[in-house]
Amino acid sequence: RINTGFKDIKQAVLDKNPAPLQEWAKKQTEAGATYLDVNLGAVSGKPEDMCWMIEQVQSVVETPISIDTNKVAILKEAVKACKKPPLLNSTTSAKEKLDPFIEIASTHNASVIGLAMDESGSAKEASKRVECAGVIAAAWMDAGLPMDRLFLDPIVMPLKFMQDQTKEFMDAARQFQMLADPAPNVSCGLSNVSSKATEKKLINRTFLVMAIACGVNATICDVLDADLIAAMRTAELLMNREIYADSYLEKK
Amino acid sequence: RINTGFKDIKQAVLDKNPAPLQEWAKKQTEAGATYLDVNLGAVSGKPEDMCWMIEQVQSVVETPISIDTNKVAILKEAVKACKKPPLLNSTTSAKEKLDPFIEIASTHNASVIGLAMDESGSAKEASKRVECAGVIAAAWMDAGLPMDRLFLDPIVMPLKFMQDQTKEFMDAARQFQMLADPAPNVSCGLSNVSSKATEKKLINRTFLVMAIACGVNATICDVLDADLIAAMRTAELLMNREIYADSYLEKK
Repeated sequence: RINTGFKDIKQAVLDKNPAPLQEWAKKQTEAGATYLDVNLGAVSGKPEDMCWMIEQVQSVVETPISIDTNKVAILKEAVKACKKPPLLNSTTSAKEKLDPFIEIASTHNASVIGLAMDESGSAKEASKRVECAGVIAAAWMDAGLPMDRLFLDPIVMPLKFMQDQTKEFMDAARQFQMLADPAPNVSCGLSNVSSKATEKKLINRTFLVMAIACGVNATICDVLDADLIAAMRTAELLMNREIYADSYLEKK
Repeated sequence: RINTGFKDIKQAVLDKNPAPLQEWAKKQTEAGATYLDVNLGAVSGKPEDMCWMIEQVQSVVETPISIDTNKVAILKEAVKACKKPPLLNSTTSAKEKLDPFIEIASTHNASVIGLAMDESGSAKEASKRVECAGVIAAAWMDAGLPMDRLFLDPIVMPLKFMQDQTKEFMDAARQFQMLADPAPNVSCGLSNVSSKATEKKLINRTFLVMAIACGVNATICDVLDADLIAAMRTAELLMNREIYADSYLEKK
C-alpha cells in the first residue's frame, strides 16, 4: 500500500512528507504483514526517491521491505537502503533481468519474486508458466541460493476478462512445487483477480483459498482486509501448516 | 435438514405432523437445493415412516429427494415413493451394501453417493480412499450405469481432531477424477469438517472452496447459509463452470 499508485502516497513522495508512508507502514505491520511493499511507480525515475521512501518506513517499523520495481538501476540503490534482507519484487525469466536480480539477491541475502513469464509477455497455458518458472529456479540453484528465498509467481489474471486462467494458474502452482526439493515458495499478487469485478473482496478471498489449496504460501494482498485474513488463516489451518486452536483467529 | 437429528423434525415425524418438513422443503428449494436430503435416523426402523417423510416433501415441492439411509430395507421402499429419480445417500465399497445400491440405482434411474471407505471403516490415507472409490466406480461401470449419476465422496474429517486429513481429502478428490472418462462427480458432506470447532461457518466455506479447487462439484450443505453459497458460486466461477456476470450472486 506504500505505492505511488495511491494518491496519498504519490502526494507524500512529491512533498517529501513522511507521515502517510509511516502511517501505512505501522497499520500494515500491526495487521501482520511479513514484508511491506514499497513502490515508487512513475512518480520518479530516481533511485534516491525510492531510498527516501524505504528510509521513512524503516524509521517507524522493523518489518522488512519488499522493493517493488523491475528497474535494475533503482533496485541496486534501494537494496543498500534496506536494514534487513529485502524481497525483490520482481523479475521474469528474461535473462537481462533475471541475472542482475540473482546477483543482487546473492550479494544482499535478499529473497526474490520470479514471475512465470518471459520477454514475450504473460503466458496463457500452465505449461508455459512452468517453463518460465523452471528457468528462474534453475538459475537460482546455479547461483547456490536457497530455495526458501525464491518465490515463484504463476501470475494471476482477471476473472472478469480471462475466466479460463484460474485453472491454468492452479495447475502451474501445483507444478511449481515439483521444480525443486525443497520446493520453492509459490506466491501471487492477489488483487488482479478481481480487476473491474463487482464483488472484489469476495473474489479475492475465494481465489486466495483456492490458490492455497494448490500450494500457494505467500501473497501480496491487503492485510487490512479482515475477512481475507480470516479466510487465509483458515485455509492455512486446513493445510495443516498451523496447529488448530479454537482461538486461532485471535492469534497474530 | 429434513433429518430427525433435528428436534423439530423428530417431533414432526413422531406426531405425523407434515408442516415442519414442508416448511424446510420449501425454504431449501427456494435457496437452490438440487436434492432435498431426507433422513429418518434412529426414530424408526420402518420403511413406511421414511416413505411418509418423502411424501410430505413431495406434496409441496418438486425437488428430487436424496434418500439418506444406509439400510437397504428402507431404501428399497423409499425409492418407490420418489416421484423423480432420487439420489441414494450412501453406500461404501463393501460388497454387501454396494451391490444392492447399484441394483436399486439401475432399476430406478437413481444416482448414488459412494463413500470412499469399506467395511473396515474410514481411511486415513488418500491412497486407501482412491482404492475404495475405484471399487465403487468399477462396479458402477460394470453395471453399465452412466458416470454422471455417480458421486464419489472422499470423506470429510473434523479439522479440530484430524488436522492432517484435509490434505488426504484433497489428494483423493483430485485422483477420483481420473478413475473414469467422463469423470465421476466428486461430492462431500460438508459440516463434518467444522465439528466442535468455534468458527464453523468460516471453516465450512473455506473448506468447500478448497474442495472445489480440487474437483469437488457437489456437496451436502446448508443451502440457507448465504455466505457459504456466495463462496461456492464464486469458486464455481473461478473454475470456469459458469460464465462471469457482474450480477452473478443474484442469479439463481
